[in-house]
This record gives sequence, C-alpha cells and structure tokens, in this order.
Amino acid sequence: MKGRLLSFTLFGESHGMAVGVLIEGLPPGIEVNVEELRGELQRRKGIPRFSTKRREDDEPVILSGVFNGFTTGTPVAVMVWNGDVDSSYYEEIWHTPRPGHADYPAGIKYFGYNDYRGGGHFSGRLTVGAVIAGYFAKKLLEREGIHLRAYIKRIGRVECPEVTPEAVFSSENPYCPHAESFEMMVEEMERARAEGDSVGGVVEAIALNVPPGLGGPWDEDIEADIASALFRIPAVKGVEFGLGLGFAEKRGSEANDPFVIRNGKILTETNNHGGVLGGITTGMPLVVRAAFKPTPSIYLPQRTVDLAKMEETGLRLRGRFDSCIVPKALPVVEAVVAFVLADHLLRRKAWEGVVM
Amino acid sequence: MKGRLLSFTLFGESHGMAVGVLIEGLPPGIEVNVEELRGELQRRKGIPRFSTKRREDDEPVILSGVFNGFTTGTPVAVMVWNGDVDSSYYEEIWHTPRPGHADYPAGIKYFGYNDYRGGGHFSGRLTVGAVIAGYFAKKLLEREGIHLRAYIKRIGRVECPEVTPEAVFSSENPYCPHAESFEMMVEEMERARAEGDSVGGVVEAIALNVPPGLGGPWDEDIEADIASALFRIPAVKGVEFGLGLGFAEKRGSEANDPFVIRNGKILTETNNHGGVLGGITTGMPLVVRAAFKPTPSIYLPQRTVDLAKMEETGLRLRGRFDSCIVPKALPVVEAVVAFVLADHLLRRKAWEGVVM
Amino acid sequence: MKGRLLSFTLFGESHGMAVGVLIEGLPPGIEVNVEELRGELQRRKGIPRFSTKRREDDEPVILSGVFNGFTTGTPVAVMVWNGDVDSSYYEEIWHTPRPGHADYPAGIKYFGYNDYRGGGHFSGRLTVGAVIAGYFAKKLLEREGIHLRAYIKRIGRVECPEVTPEAVFSSENPYCPHAESFEMMVEEMERARAEGDSVGGVVEAIALNVPPGLGGPWDEDIEADIASALFRIPAVKGVEFGLGLGFAEKRGSEANDPFVIRNGKILTETNNHGGVLGGITTGMPLVVRAAFKPTPSIYLPQRTVDLAKMEETGLRLRGRFDSCIVPKALPVVEAVVAFVLADHLLRRKAWEGVVM
Amino acid sequence: MKGRLLSFTLFGESHGMAVGVLIEGLPPGIEVNVEELRGELQRRKGIPRFSTKRREDDEPVILSGVFNGFTTGTPVAVMVWNGDVDSSYYEEIWHTPRPGHADYPAGIKYFGYNDYRGGGHFSGRLTVGAVIAGYFAKKLLEREGIHLRAYIKRIGRVECPEVTPEAVFSSENPYCPHAESFEMMVEEMERARAEGDSVGGVVEAIALNVPPGLGGPWDEDIEADIASALFRIPAVKGVEFGLGLGFAEKRGSEANDPFVIRNGKILTETNNHGGVLGGITTGMPLVVRAAFKPTPSIYLPQRTVDLAKMEETGLRLRGRFDSCIVPKALPVVEAVVAFVLADHLLRRKAWEGVVM
Repeated sequence: MKGRLLSFTLFGESHGMAVGVLIEGLPPGIEVNVEELRGELQRRKGIPRFSTKRREDDEPVILSGVFNGFTTGTPVAVMVWNGDVDSSYYEEIWHTPRPGHADYPAGIKYFGYNDYRGGGHFSGRLTVGAVIAGYFAKKLLEREGIHLRAYIKRIGRVECPEVTPEAVFSSENPYCPHAESFEMMVEEMERARAEGDSVGGVVEAIALNVPPGLGGPWDEDIEADIASALFRIPAVKGVEFGLGLGFAEKRGSEANDPFVIRNGKILTETNNHGGVLGGITTGMPLVVRAAFKPTPSIYLPQRTVDLAKMEETGLRLRGRFDSCIVPKALPVVEAVVAFVLADHLLRRKAWEGVVM
Repeated sequence: MKGRLLSFTLFGESHGMAVGVLIEGLPPGIEVNVEELRGELQRRKGIPRFSTKRREDDEPVILSGVFNGFTTGTPVAVMVWNGDVDSSYYEEIWHTPRPGHADYPAGIKYFGYNDYRGGGHFSGRLTVGAVIAGYFAKKLLEREGIHLRAYIKRIGRVECPEVTPEAVFSSENPYCPHAESFEMMVEEMERARAEGDSVGGVVEAIALNVPPGLGGPWDEDIEADIASALFRIPAVKGVEFGLGLGFAEKRGSEANDPFVIRNGKILTETNNHGGVLGGITTGMPLVVRAAFKPTPSIYLPQRTVDLAKMEETGLRLRGRFDSCIVPKALPVVEAVVAFVLADHLLRRKAWEGVVM
Repeated sequence: MKGRLLSFTLFGESHGMAVGVLIEGLPPGIEVNVEELRGELQRRKGIPRFSTKRREDDEPVILSGVFNGFTTGTPVAVMVWNGDVDSSYYEEIWHTPRPGHADYPAGIKYFGYNDYRGGGHFSGRLTVGAVIAGYFAKKLLEREGIHLRAYIKRIGRVECPEVTPEAVFSSENPYCPHAESFEMMVEEMERARAEGDSVGGVVEAIALNVPPGLGGPWDEDIEADIASALFRIPAVKGVEFGLGLGFAEKRGSEANDPFVIRNGKILTETNNHGGVLGGITTGMPLVVRAAFKPTPSIYLPQRTVDLAKMEETGLRLRGRFDSCIVPKALPVVEAVVAFVLADHLLRRKAWEGVVM
Repeated sequence: MKGRLLSFTLFGESHGMAVGVLIEGLPPGIEVNVEELRGELQRRKGIPRFSTKRREDDEPVILSGVFNGFTTGTPVAVMVWNGDVDSSYYEEIWHTPRPGHADYPAGIKYFGYNDYRGGGHFSGRLTVGAVIAGYFAKKLLEREGIHLRAYIKRIGRVECPEVTPEAVFSSENPYCPHAESFEMMVEEMERARAEGDSVGGVVEAIALNVPPGLGGPWDEDIEADIASALFRIPAVKGVEFGLGLGFAEKRGSEANDPFVIRNGKILTETNNHGGVLGGITTGMPLVVRAAFKPTPSIYLPQRTVDLAKMEETGLRLRGRFDSCIVPKALPVVEAVVAFVLADHLLRRKAWEGVVM
C-alpha cells in the first residue's frame, strides 16, 4: 500500500520463516504500546470456532523505527515469526490448483518459482503485517480525534439492519452492533461449517471526525485510494461508499444530501454519500463497505485440473479451514482504511502548513 | 492515474481555456489515427437527448509525443480547447454549494482558491482527457489481441439480464446488447428528465483475451488498480468484479470456479471471479462493474446553505444538465480499465524479458 | 521531476507544435504574475551573443490550474508554442548521429520512432517547461523566506574565485558576481565561438534561509533529490555539494564544520558541507554545483557513422549553435533546485502539522 | 531507493535490534547463493586495519521471497542481527552534536525522537542492506552479461592513474588495479589514522556490456537515477560521469566522442561521456565516480555546541572509528549502481516486449 507520504509493504509467506511489514513515512513521536498491538493481532484471529488454529502466538517483533516507546520517523519494520508448519500436503497438491485460490494464475505470474506452500505470499496470514501497519496509522489518527470501527454488515443471507455510527462505536459486541443479527450470522457460519462449506460476507467500516477537505479529484481521490487499499485484502471482490451500488437505482432528488447547519457547523442532513463528495471528505462519517467472497478452501469435493498430466481431476482438500473469514477481516479493513486516511491527513497538513 | 510504467494526468477546468491529458510511459510505435480518436471523444458525448449540449467540437490537439503518425515514446500531451462559456451564473451561486457536488468540500480542500465555474477541475468535462489516454492504451492492447467493451448494465430500476461476453462484443447497439432492456432504460431516463430529475446506473466492462498472469497480491493487485482507476471517475460510488457484492451471499461451493480443460487450454467452467483470482488475471474474460450515482444537477428545488450568510436556504439550479451520465461514461470506463491493463501488460513483458 | 508531493513533467519537442510542463501538487494560493514568468523565460535565453536566436517569443500560455491570478491547487499546465521551424536539415542528417548528442542512443531507445528534428524531446528547448515549474516553486519558497540564486562558477579555464553568498545575492551582474572573472568568461566564450567550437562550465546555486530539517537519510536524502534533478538537465555531467569532490582530498579535521552559536542560533563556523549533513539541511546556505559539458553542436568537422550505410563518415553541422549554454542554464538550475526544496518543504510541513 | 519496477528500502538502526532491507520487484528465478551473499557482506567490512571491528558476523537472514534457492517474485526481506552494543556513550554525548555527522539536523528533522545511538538510522551500518539489495541486482544483471566493478580512484592526495576498464576487471587487488597507487593509498590512510584523523576519497564504478538504450531524457535519465542512488550513500558529496567536472574545462571538439564502427558494432572512439549520452546508455562502458568525504568521526579535539546548555563546547570522541571508509564503500557503490541498472533493464524489456 503505497501512499504519497505513508506506505507499507508486506513480506513473508505462509510457510516461510516469518511475515511482517515495513512502514515508511510514519512521523516521529507516535507512542507505541506493544500490549495494544498484540490486542490488534489477537482480533485478527477472529471467532475461534470459525477460524483455523495455527499455533503461532503472533508476537510482534519490532525490528526498527521505534525507540524509547515512540516512533522515530525512520522506517518501522515489524515481523512475526511463523511457527513450525507441515508443508508436505502442499508438495502433494501443487499441481492441482485449488478452485477460487490464486494457485493457477500465481504459477503463471511467477513462472513456477512462487512459494506455493499454504498459499505462500497470497495467504491470509500476510494480513498480520497490514494489521500492524494499521495500528500505527490508527494511533496517529487518534491524536487528531479520528476514530475507526469496522463491523460485520452481512454473513451469507443475514444482513445487519441499518445502524447509526454511534451504535457501531458504542457496541460492546466486537463483531456486530445488532445482537439478533449477530446470532443469526453465527448460525449462518455454523451451517456452512457443518456442511463442509464456507460463506462470504460484507464488512462496513466507519470513520468519525474525519476533517472535511481530505482527498480531491482524479489522482487525489480518497475513495479511489481507500478502494484500492481494500481490494488488496485477499477475498475482497466489491467496494462501495455510502449508498454504493444502491445509488444506481436512485434519482438525484433522493440521492443528493441536503446541506444543513447544526450547531454552527455545516453538515449534510442525510449521508448517502458516505462522507465523500467529489473524492473529498465532507466531515460527515466516512462509510465504506467491502464484500468478501466465501473462503475458497472447503471440504466438499471440487473439480480442477492436474497440471502435470493436463487432465481434469477431482480434489478434496484436507486441513483446517476458516468457514468464514469475515470476522477476522474487521481489523484488517480498519487497518487499510486508517492507513489511507493517515496518508491523506499528512498531505492535508502539508498544505495547511503553507497556505493557512 | 499513476501506474508503474504508464501514467496519465488530467488538466483543465470546465470553464478554463482547455482540458487535456499528459500521458507518460507510452511505448513508441503505437499508430495514432486522429479520426478514431475523434470517434472516441464523440462517444463520450452520450445519447444526445440526455446530454448537455456544449458547443465544443472536442477536436483533439496533439501537442507532443506523436511523430509521423506514431507515438515516439516521450510524453504525449493532448488537449481540447474549451468553447466560450458563460460563467456568470456560477459567480452568483458559488456561496450556495450544490448538494451532491464537490463544491463544499472543494472549497475547504483548496482554501477557496479553486475554480468553481462549472465545477472547475471536478467537471465531467475532464473525462475528455481520460478518454484520450484510453485511446492510446486500447491501441496498445489491441496489438496484443486484447479487446474491451463497456455497456450499460443498469439505469435506475432497469437492469440488463445476464449476457455473454460474445453478445456484448457483437452487439450493434453501442449502449446495451439487450434491445428490450435498452428501450426500458431510455424510458427510465426520459421519466427522470421529464420530472426535472436525474437517475443513476451501472456500467459493466469486459476485456477479452487478457493473458493470465497480470497482477499479483497486495501491491501488485490488478483488481485494486482497476478499482482505483474507476473510482477516480466522477460519480462512481461502487466497484465490483465478477459476482462482486453477490459473493457475500454465496457459499464457497457455489462461488469457486472449477478448473477445466477446453481445447488444451486451462479455463474455469464458470467465471464468478470475473477473470481475476488472488489479484491476478486468469485468462478468463475480465468482468468489472462500476455504479454511477445520479447526476447531482437537477431542476427540482433543493436545500443547501448560504456560506456567506451561514444560513440554510433553498436552491433551484438553472442550466442544461444530463438527466443520466451513464451512457457517456462507457468510453470513460473502457479508457481507465484499458489503461490499467496496459500498465500491467508492460510490467508482465518486463519479467518475461528476463525470466523466459 | 517527481517529488513526493510536487512533480513536474515536461512535454514537447524542439520542432513540434509546442513545449510545456504539467505541474502537480502545487498548493493553492500562489500568486502568479505573468510578467515575472516572462522574465524567467527571458533569462533562459542567455547572453544573446552566445545563444541561438530562435524566433519564438516564448509567451507562456497557462492552460489550467490558475484562477484569478492564483494557483488553484489542481494541475497547472503551461505551454509555449513553437515558432515555425525548418526541419529539412534534420531529415538530411538523421542517419549520421551527431557526436555528443543523444541521437544514436535515442534511436535505439525509441526503436527509431523518436522525433529527431532539432533533438526532439532531448532539445534544450524543453528547459522552458522546467523554468516555468521553477517559477512556481520559487514563489512558494519566497513566501517562506527562502531565496535562490545561481551564478556562473566556471567557463572553460576561467573560474570565479570564492565569493560569499551575500555577494552572490547582491550582485548586479546576473551571470557572475565577480566582474573580472565575468569578463574573462566572456572572452573564453568568444574564443570558442570564433573557432567554431563550444565550451563547458560550472553553475553554482545557493539557497538562503533554508530551514534546518529538510531531507533525511537514504530515501529522504535531499542531496540525492537535488542531484537527481540537476542531472536531468541536458549536458550536466557532474554535481557536488559544498567542497564536493574536494572532500576526497581532505582530512576529517579539515572537513568537519564546527558548530557554533551566533545570536542565539546554532550555525556551523565553516560551510564545507554546503548546508547539508546526513542528507538533511542544516540551516546554513545550501551550496550545490553542476558541471555542464560543452555544447555538442560545433562547426568544426567531426567524425561519425552513417547508420544507413553502416560506414564511418565525416559530419559538418550547419545551423546556429550556442557556443556556451552555461549562461542560459542559470534559471534552469535555480528552477530544479527550487522545485526539490519546495517538495521537501511541503513534506516538512506535513510532519510539523502532526508532531508539533 | 525507489525505481520504477525495482525498489529497496533499508530499515534498522546502528544500535537497534537488526538492520536489513526489503526489496520489491525482483523477478522470480534469480538464483540465490548465501555463500556469495556472505562474501559481499564481508567485502563491506573493508580493509581490517582501517575499519571498526564490530563483533557482528553479518549473517544474512532471508526472511521472505526466496524459495528453494531462487527468488519467488514476491518481496524479499533480508536482515542481519545487530550484536550487543554498548550505547551508554551516546547517552552521554547526544546533546553535543558531532561535527560532520547528522546529529544536529536529525534532531530537528525528527523532533528529538530519533535513535541517536551510534548514528541510528544514519549509521554506515545501514549499508548492509544496500549491499544485500545489490547482490540480487548483480545476479540479475549477470544473467544478461552485465558486470560491474568498483575500485578506489583516490584516497586523500593519492589518485590512481587512468586505467582501462579491462585492467579494472582483471585486477587481482580487490581495491585498486594499480599496485603502486594502492600502496600509497594505504600509506595515506595510515597517516590519517596515526594522527587521529580520517581521510576522504573517490570510488569509480565501471559497468561492462550495458546494452545501449537504457534511460532517456528528463524523468527517464539514467545518470540522474544513478547519481540519486549514489548520493543516498552516507558521506557521498559529489558524483560525476565520464570526464565529469572535467567537462567544464573542455571544448566541444575535445569532449565529443566520435562514433566509429568496430567489428560491425557502433562504438565511440573515446568514452568521455562515460557510456551515457542524453541520459541514455550508449553501449560503451558506464563510468561513474562518487566522492566520499573523510569520516567525520576523528580522535582529534573538535568544537561543537552543548544543546542542553546552549553554549559552545569542546568534544573529544571516544570509540573505534574508520580512518577511511572508502575501501568499505566499494560493494556499496556497486550495489546501488547495479540496482539502478537492473531497474532500467527491466523497463527496457517491457518496451522490447511490445515494440519488437
């Protein structure tokens, strides 16, 4: 994720030595609390019942860029060792690309040199580094009063009804602010699991107190940068802001958010645009959703091809799979949205420094 | 739109002297046919009935980078003069930001220095430059056998039923391959126009013969790059690939595309993933959709605030507005998707040059 | 020249329709005085006696990004039309690459598609756009109290003796603060011209009031960014800061600049480092030099190859050539140094905005 | 060092946990020989007599991006653990910035949050990561027949006389191909050491078999990219190509390299331009020189200021210092030049893939 002033780059492979992240452009003076960082990594483990149980403790090792508990302003490298893993199964099936996984196109992209064990660099395990990067970005945003929270908007056929941003932020349930929906979502995941299948979903992220004026048209567009960041998360296949795809069915008279004045502040009465107009934040809550496809790894029999023999064949995967990755995705979604916001915030500060 | 090897930057304002584009990274030897380029710009004018009638002829002036009918390999600058426009109306209303437009956040972003006349740099007129950039990208892709076509998937409540890529490419109707749907779409636009309102829609773009292996995970993700490009088009509020948001409701067993062999070639039986797995093209048709919000400019009365007096007020817009911009958006969508594909194609060639 | 927040891209060819520049990232509110801009372009014409006399008036046409006399914050495009030129001579000699010119490697780089007329995109005429970009950067820097000035340090065998920054800034001679040296430099250029030859030189640029803290190690290094910008100017073959190459012959005890306190401010007693330590500005005057090779176009007979016949041949150039481009280079050197400083200044402001 | 297709980013601090590098864009299939890599890191230790003796073994730990002995095509992270170091001395002197070091401007740049121990991120130790990145780049270049070698051109007052590229590449002395000069250089370093002082020098790097056509004008300029990379190495204060600063004293008739045909190949008879014309490689040996200032750490007493008391003071450094870092710099110079060449080579392949 390369911003203009803030970038992070993930490294590592699922069955390699470690996974991690290199973050560039973080300003000095961001306080780093390893306990909090561990907490973020813990959130990434999702709901135990529906997640694979890798033995890793995911202890972050801060290699550089933090000194006396604060960022220094130079590149921050953080890694997490991978535990011992048994890769023998992947040696066995590498020639039968798993449907829905990157195996086949990755083999072409990398001319066969890619590390195919456990998905290699494509593995969801790489999101460890994204969550770490997001931790730093969120700390920076918090200093400016900007807060983010992601929750599960949908699992399979179960959609959470519309809730206010306040309800999302004050919810004690870390997954979904609507208790009844959450129960049904859990059942939906249970059903998929029981049937050896998996199920997709939607995550909605909300950012509060985003100042107006971040972003711009075309190359400065903050929606484009956020969407770009979200699509980089494995399994994301759709992104929308505010009414999103729903805008397509609307009339202008319904979709336009009227400007109003409340307590001397200019707001919009509705927030159909999810806090962004013309690629620029309006000061209203930023609302974005990412659709996740169901985990491609399932226990049910599938059809694929044997690349060695160039013939069609059946495939029955073994191992431990997430029946739904959506709960795990919450801190990842927050992380990348926060990172983009932090980059745009810094760009804003640059202009404020010379114009105001 | 900044790719790794191919970038374009738009310049100009709606009521300024000209609009245009600077394209960097175009390889030499791309044949340039000005007649074709004019044709693309003509497509951008949309269906006359539903579009504003600016007097501009949109004659492309190629300032640099083309010599003897071919690109030279150095930056290509192309501009189109703006015709005379009357900006007096905007002087009148600049202090009452138009709902759904960027007026309000742009004023903050640019500290009041932005050219507010006709939307300035935010105007849809800027897409002229994007279409020009797309023309060059498409010419490059065509040499590699890659073809693109966008069509209207939805206008308001009217959705085009699922059609095959072949039907899209062979359709004689330049807007929608399904005649009956198109008729209904036109009616939907008529209704909005008659009521002084506007209506949104969805554009689907399909690319054929995209080689497998373009893209990659995280920073290389081609879906992220395409989504990023699409969201930069004004009015886009959602982007999805293949089943897109529909994935969220699916089971893995339904969503995974089984690999098959057809005529010695590895394909997937279905194409739920829209030609991209793990951020990499699979060789299947690339299918992406962008949702456009209804034009924010409508004739119906609206509510806004008077920034000068800091009080709420009514607003009734005058002028000529598109009741639906979706038909005009087709070449723009093709343009930016083509541009991203061309960038990734070049990156692929770099690796092929040293690995194969 | 791509900075992190500020970039410019040149377009155009010597015998094409126009040359110009697209500038991205300029903050809004920079006052634009076309008369001043014309003055900068006039400076680029050098000392009439030693410069070619193209008929162009070099009238800047501001296509975008300036409104009511101020930058808007969106991309600024400025171009200058090329006058009518006779390109027939270049058609005649394109197959005999001119020694010292880019003709031969450019033919390979661009697979023969490049515009070879008058050097095409390699022409010194492209510096028009750099000077324009520099004008905007200097205006921004001036608001922060930062001033730049370049002067001729050497022409051929004549070197200007060491002068104080103050002498440079207060000099009334726009080329060299040392009157006697300047006279000898003129003679040196005269001699070269009289003999149908050309001569090289060195330009030194000084920036005053650069705040300490711009730049950083490795990817943030401001010396690297300035050097990078200077080497992009055609004919530059060496760049050095402070003592520069002279450091190589020095002992540490001679080279280190002792820190001192003067009027409550931390300075260095000497400024061997040219205002940069560890890639970061120190607050002392920034001093950088660029060495220009002699204009490769000379009237004396030269040896080259005939690419069409693949045989060695003689070449005698016709036309009007600069016998020395160094005087013309002064505003170009100022421009690119100013541009890099402005980019780093903006980056600094971003951090100040969140840390201080 | 950010190239268009190939980038590396250094991380770590001198007294931190580790130093390392993240390399992005490396194509898959580059064979990695850890023994060779260790050898490169060993070269970076310089001539034992004149170098500090940190206890580190500099064992490269490849964290990612290499699988079964070949690069995978995904980010390569390599780190080297730092040995235990005693940082107490730096706690003692942090408020008295060392002349010639980055201490003072770094304190401002980082608002006091930087890790000042042993120079922190500014330390020469960071070049470990650059050398690692260079190893991969050189392996890639070697597959295309491109070879690099750097040697010491000058130490203090001792300059190596002009030698042919062939002599450089066939020399058995790893530091300087001219035995007598090398002896005198050693004496020069000895003298500096004996006197508690340090001395500067010049490194020249030569690349053979660089194909013509790499680079371009302005943003594509390969000299600018190489200079940019070299200036990022700590202590570099000047960079020049071919005759370099010497061009300034030359006439065009002396400086221009006549084109000739040798064995059916187009060459230049002389190579004053160091293999680059108009920012593009010509196919002649690429010749570049970087001037290094003397190590700022010396045993002689120096003057500085006490930032805590804001008064001038004396400083006498303790510890082990390199009396000359030039010998250690050879693999670093090779590394960054190789990295830039590799980036441009990949860009060339991209165009060849679509144009040829």
